[in-house]
Amino acid sequence: MELRSLVRGSAAKILLIVVDGLGGIADERHGTELEEAHTPNLDRLAAEGVTGLLEPVGPGITPGSGPGHLALFGYDPFAFELGRGALSAAGLGFDLAPGDVAARGNLCTLDRSGNVVDRRAGRIPDEEARRIVERLEREVRVEGVRVFFRHERQHRLLVVLRGEGLDPGVTDTDPQVEGVPPLPPRPTRPEARRTAELVAAVVAEARRVLADEPRANGLLLRGFDTHRELPPFPERTGLRACAAAVYPMYRGVAKLLGFEVLGEPSDLEEEVALLRRAWPRFDFFFLHHKDADSAGEDGDRARKIAAIEALDAWVPELLALGPDVVAVTGDHATPSQMAAHSWHPVPVLVRGPWCGRDEVDRFGERWCRVGGLGLRRSTDLLPILLANAGRLAKYGA
Amino acid sequence: MELRSLVRGSAAKILLIVVDGLGGIADERHGTELEEAHTPNLDRLAAEGVTGLLEPVGPGITPGSGPGHLALFGYDPFAFELGRGALSAAGLGFDLAPGDVAARGNLCTLDRSGNVVDRRAGRIPDEEARRIVERLEREVRVEGVRVFFRHERQHRLLVVLRGEGLDPGVTDTDPQVEGVPPLPPRPTRPEARRTAELVAAVVAEARRVLADEPRANGLLLRGFDTHRELPPFPERTGLRACAAAVYPMYRGVAKLLGFEVLGEPSDLEEEVALLRRAWPRFDFFFLHHKDADSAGEDGDRARKIAAIEALDAWVPELLALGPDVVAVTGDHATPSQMAAHSWHPVPVLVRGPWCGRDEVDRFGERWCRVGGLGLRRSTDLLPILLANAGRLAKYGA
Repeated sequence: MELRSLVRGSAAKILLIVVDGLGGIADERHGTELEEAHTPNLDRLAAEGVTGLLEPVGPGITPGSGPGHLALFGYDPFAFELGRGALSAAGLGFDLAPGDVAARGNLCTLDRSGNVVDRRAGRIPDEEARRIVERLEREVRVEGVRVFFRHERQHRLLVVLRGEGLDPGVTDTDPQVEGVPPLPPRPTRPEARRTAELVAAVVAEARRVLADEPRANGLLLRGFDTHRELPPFPERTGLRACAAAVYPMYRGVAKLLGFEVLGEPSDLEEEVALLRRAWPRFDFFFLHHKDADSAGEDGDRARKIAAIEALDAWVPELLALGPDVVAVTGDHATPSQMAAHSWHPVPVLVRGPWCGRDEVDRFGERWCRVGGLGLRRSTDLLPILLANAGRLAKYGA
Repeated sequence: MELRSLVRGSAAKILLIVVDGLGGIADERHGTELEEAHTPNLDRLAAEGVTGLLEPVGPGITPGSGPGHLALFGYDPFAFELGRGALSAAGLGFDLAPGDVAARGNLCTLDRSGNVVDRRAGRIPDEEARRIVERLEREVRVEGVRVFFRHERQHRLLVVLRGEGLDPGVTDTDPQVEGVPPLPPRPTRPEARRTAELVAAVVAEARRVLADEPRANGLLLRGFDTHRELPPFPERTGLRACAAAVYPMYRGVAKLLGFEVLGEPSDLEEEVALLRRAWPRFDFFFLHHKDADSAGEDGDRARKIAAIEALDAWVPELLALGPDVVAVTGDHATPSQMAAHSWHPVPVLVRGPWCGRDEVDRFGERWCRVGGLGLRRSTDLLPILLANAGRLAKYGA
């Protein structure tokens, strides 16, 4: 049975707040970041609503941002694969043509022997990074293919190869750890052999061009992908959907799913203002808050806690918009102890007129564990939100 | 793996008590109906057994009675669709012939402008309803098709169309809300166009015939369906199964699955007496208790609580029959706050010699949430009952 066969109209509005990398792990010294954050507004929502834990993709599976978000929007992340390149392109408004191969790039710092000493080039500031990416765009030339470089944010950029016979079946050059050299790109199928060679040439060219840069002297690529068509979210759910996100990649995933992307906000205040202006025109509002994940990836526990508290402070303004159903969760866990995404379940709360109540009155892993929603896959969330909004008809007689 | 390949014999008897619409939701003022009901006997079973929550069909999915019961009997409700018409026909002992189209009907009250003011004609008493349905059977004539009307209970009736080239792909005329006119029947596929026209003619004829009735002056139809073959429960499970239910529709679903239906009891006392007489001849006993759902659908919290307490009072008599394994649950939630079926999980308890114990000693959502069975799909229940009855062999060596 397809969910869309049960979808029916309703005036109820749904607000989904995604705190990127929200989930954490407790250890012998600390609770999770969310447990230890001071979040009076989220706690009140937890008390008035129903809580639980979401497993983003599957047991033990650490999701990237693409699958993590697809699952929250109700798309089976195994059925709908989405490379980081395609997400970045959509987020930057770069129109991928059929046949293009796109990848997510990091500017990185290499030492003299070619080992990665900083995968993010010290989280280089936007202005400096933009100058460097423009250099790459101007100076990198590889025979047989046209190469585009677009700056995203900080050390992040988009790289697109355009030419004949390209294939995205190429492995990442990003080794994901430091102290080792970048990986050589390898084809995952015979048709991608030439593309892998071209990628190797692009990386070598970039290194030549950036040789004199003090900290951004290398390029790491991951998530090779090509243009994809995804079944639009508004068609699947009957919801007019919009997205407010500071980082282009999250605007990208929303755009690929047929959301209207609201401007290019630079912080939570601007995101909330965009949602407020858009409020009458939509049914589903996706607010993305990145900072918790960035702090978690840096292994900075205190900053992750502060990022969660910063979101909490905006909750009253968001509730003042008048959502009928509000949900708060994350796309995956990013425990600061691990300084990386992880497979651990992520807390979730849902508040609406018919959500039911559990006994949980604080938002955090240890409390949500016994909440009324139980432990479930992230793909379960969207039908639960639709049901709470009165947007699903009864199944069967 | 098919479950039936593991089925083995045993003398153990299983009693499944289904309290229709058992599940509820807590709100800021009240616990759920079950939590607040005084149920010493169910609480003792919960204490001696193991508890949990069942999600009938899927996250956010509000099940009709058909899918809700199919799931409890171990049939995937998406693989085995069952319209209300076929259920009603089976329950009434009306033998649907291949090609017949059956629908569940409600007598309703229409105002002068044709809007539905009461979808259930004031839950009209059986005697008055029977007279009206007999009028329909006698007086409604539509060219090209034979129409049968059979009274079920209160405002409910069965309508069957018999003729050439009929197709059940017709949408409900029941708008499910009041204050609006009945919906026109529409074909969901081209082959059903003529059937939809015939249904429209039946509805118009019924309205003409009932024009002088004070409160039952209209007819709402839903759940168009045709004769279906379902794999019999006794074959799938090795269980000789019987059913005691006051309402015909639930006898209907049991009959379609190959249960022996025990008489036509009019209350719990007669249901228990029927089970007692049938006890030596069967392995699996399905007791259906409807009143909790009816009260929930009427938004009558106190009556739903009383209906649950009425069932509780019969538990000692039921246990005196000597079931080896007893389970109590519902086919879906019917929160009285919503006055409708809902998607919320339903409490379950299982008691048997090897069920294990959890710490739960009261039967209700908030306690079952942390019970030993966890939160699972309703289709999981039947294999758990078979295992508790010693009826499933080891899988693999």
